[in-house]
Amino acid sequence: MSPVRSPHHLKPRVAITVGDVAGVGPEISLHCAAMAAVNGKCQPILIGPAEAMQKIALKLGLTLPRVITESEWVGHTAGVPLLIDCGQIATPELRPGKFSAETGQASFDAVDLAIRQCLDGQFDALVTGPIQKEAWHAAGTGFLGHTELLAQRTHTEEYCMMLSGHSVSSVLCTIHLPLVDAIAALSVESISRAIRLGGLAMERKHGRPPRITVLGLNPHAGENGLLSHGEERDLICPAIAEAQRWQAERQLGWQIVGPVPPDTAFTPAMRARSDVHICMYHDQGLIPLKALCFDDAVNVTLGLPLVRTSVDHGTAMDLAWQGQASPNSMLSAIDMAVDLCQRPPHH
Amino acid sequence: MSPVRSPHHLKPRVAITVGDVAGVGPEISLHCAAMAAVNGKCQPILIGPAEAMQKIALKLGLTLPRVITESEWVGHTAGVPLLIDCGQIATPELRPGKFSAETGQASFDAVDLAIRQCLDGQFDALVTGPIQKEAWHAAGTGFLGHTELLAQRTHTEEYCMMLSGHSVSSVLCTIHLPLVDAIAALSVESISRAIRLGGLAMERKHGRPPRITVLGLNPHAGENGLLSHGEERDLICPAIAEAQRWQAERQLGWQIVGPVPPDTAFTPAMRARSDVHICMYHDQGLIPLKALCFDDAVNVTLGLPLVRTSVDHGTAMDLAWQGQASPNSMLSAIDMAVDLCQRPPHH
Repeated sequence: MSPVRSPHHLKPRVAITVGDVAGVGPEISLHCAAMAAVNGKCQPILIGPAEAMQKIALKLGLTLPRVITESEWVGHTAGVPLLIDCGQIATPELRPGKFSAETGQASFDAVDLAIRQCLDGQFDALVTGPIQKEAWHAAGTGFLGHTELLAQRTHTEEYCMMLSGHSVSSVLCTIHLPLVDAIAALSVESISRAIRLGGLAMERKHGRPPRITVLGLNPHAGENGLLSHGEERDLICPAIAEAQRWQAERQLGWQIVGPVPPDTAFTPAMRARSDVHICMYHDQGLIPLKALCFDDAVNVTLGLPLVRTSVDHGTAMDLAWQGQASPNSMLSAIDMAVDLCQRPPHH
Repeated sequence: MSPVRSPHHLKPRVAITVGDVAGVGPEISLHCAAMAAVNGKCQPILIGPAEAMQKIALKLGLTLPRVITESEWVGHTAGVPLLIDCGQIATPELRPGKFSAETGQASFDAVDLAIRQCLDGQFDALVTGPIQKEAWHAAGTGFLGHTELLAQRTHTEEYCMMLSGHSVSSVLCTIHLPLVDAIAALSVESISRAIRLGGLAMERKHGRPPRITVLGLNPHAGENGLLSHGEERDLICPAIAEAQRWQAERQLGWQIVGPVPPDTAFTPAMRARSDVHICMYHDQGLIPLKALCFDDAVNVTLGLPLVRTSVDHGTAMDLAWQGQASPNSMLSAIDMAVDLCQRPPHH
């Protein structure tokens, strides 16, 4: 968590980076910052290039929050939505869908500012709008995306990704790898870490000991070895045992179940018994999440020393600046960020 | 299809094997055979050991259909539900949940009879109740399960499995293999066969050219090779091209799309655009199916010279003979069988 936190009587200060200004990030950020539901539970502070944001706000008839500089923000709080001006954009030439090294650098600078101020205790949580990875690459930022930047700036080596929607939360033990490589990359350590980090997040979200379901890798969770090369026996079961020991030593009262057959892990009955699913590979967790929570899923980076959530969609360049993009995923990301930062971890 | 089919004015004759008598198969079969909705669209003929069925019917207050022998059935039809007596069981000792070599042999004999009479044109379709595979093994039947028996008796080498529910139908290119072996087992031939057989089944079910979605293997369908060892480029794309050629030569008008990213393939929007999903491995197809259609999924064996559907659940030995098992999956299996056998393939 942030070294310095909002006093208890103040609402959490949530930094919202607007993402690539050529995409849908700015309009959904502006929408969210103007909503009573958002302002009722937190202090939203947008971060992005003010002139470009004004151009988009004007085009869509949206309200631009009061614009301040980074140094004006530090040490202050305010009861109204704000926009910290960050990033240089040649605004007259800026067009929807036309991302560039310039838009990439601006969206990078916003995230970098937000991380710095989170670590300095000036924000309680970070919600990131969608960036264009090619634009970060074109700008020569040296980072693939948000997660790599967050890990480097916070000196974090042990993190993982959770996707969370209204009826499913999936923590992924492996992410963007070809499927055979993902299987080969599984380890007792990566699985037990995912269980631990997923459990901690759910404990903070729900304020009670979490119920954790760990999936098998193979059909029927390997059917006692018949349909497995031993991944359940040699990796998943030891990881569960390790996580069990870890939580028992701390008397956390967690319930950890598995390895369960993947195909029945997401039936309504199983979902009702579980707060979070620990998934072995990308699609094992994301197929059911997107089938069931297509519109309200949130991406959470677990294991960081700050609370970071993100929308679960891209820049949608073809929809940009039309006022049609749904703010639902960002609203969920803000909700999740507020839930997580209002209950600090107790271990 | 069956060499001899019901005359057009008669309802299709659907053989229903009751499954292992120690499980829930008998009671759901009796339920279905007594339902007006079932009798309105087909002639149900249960196949199983009559004395054991009577014991279960008595215990649960269910109606036992008129009992006949196999030879009494041949060449006849009837307007009422029937039970063909098949299989020897020492009924006084029979208990719910206590499967044995004897219950295994009886359930095997029923399926074997049904296949024989389907091939002989005495039935138009086969719906199978749940068997206990260990019981088939204990009886020394020499077959792992229904599918192996069906393939052998009908001399079929090219078949595959489809699981179908109210909102998703998944055809599986590979089934019961450890995940790494399933990936290694994928071939242009097995994928194009799955597309072809899935398309034919949907054409028969819906009576129009099907819309087919073929999934990628890797996260984001390999993201142009970045997250792939070439399975999309070398296997899935050529298989789609082959199936395209096959349907174009026959002027079938099929729509085949893919390879699509697996995680977004089952969102509501994608499901609305697709009749059937061609899935590379077991859990890719079954996770979304069971998450979305937990209670009404049907198992269909594609590629056989007869129509065969099955319940999508096991014997549920712990629930047997209590009258609590839901007949929904068998009702769906009967519906699907009737749909498939009323529209013969036209190529």
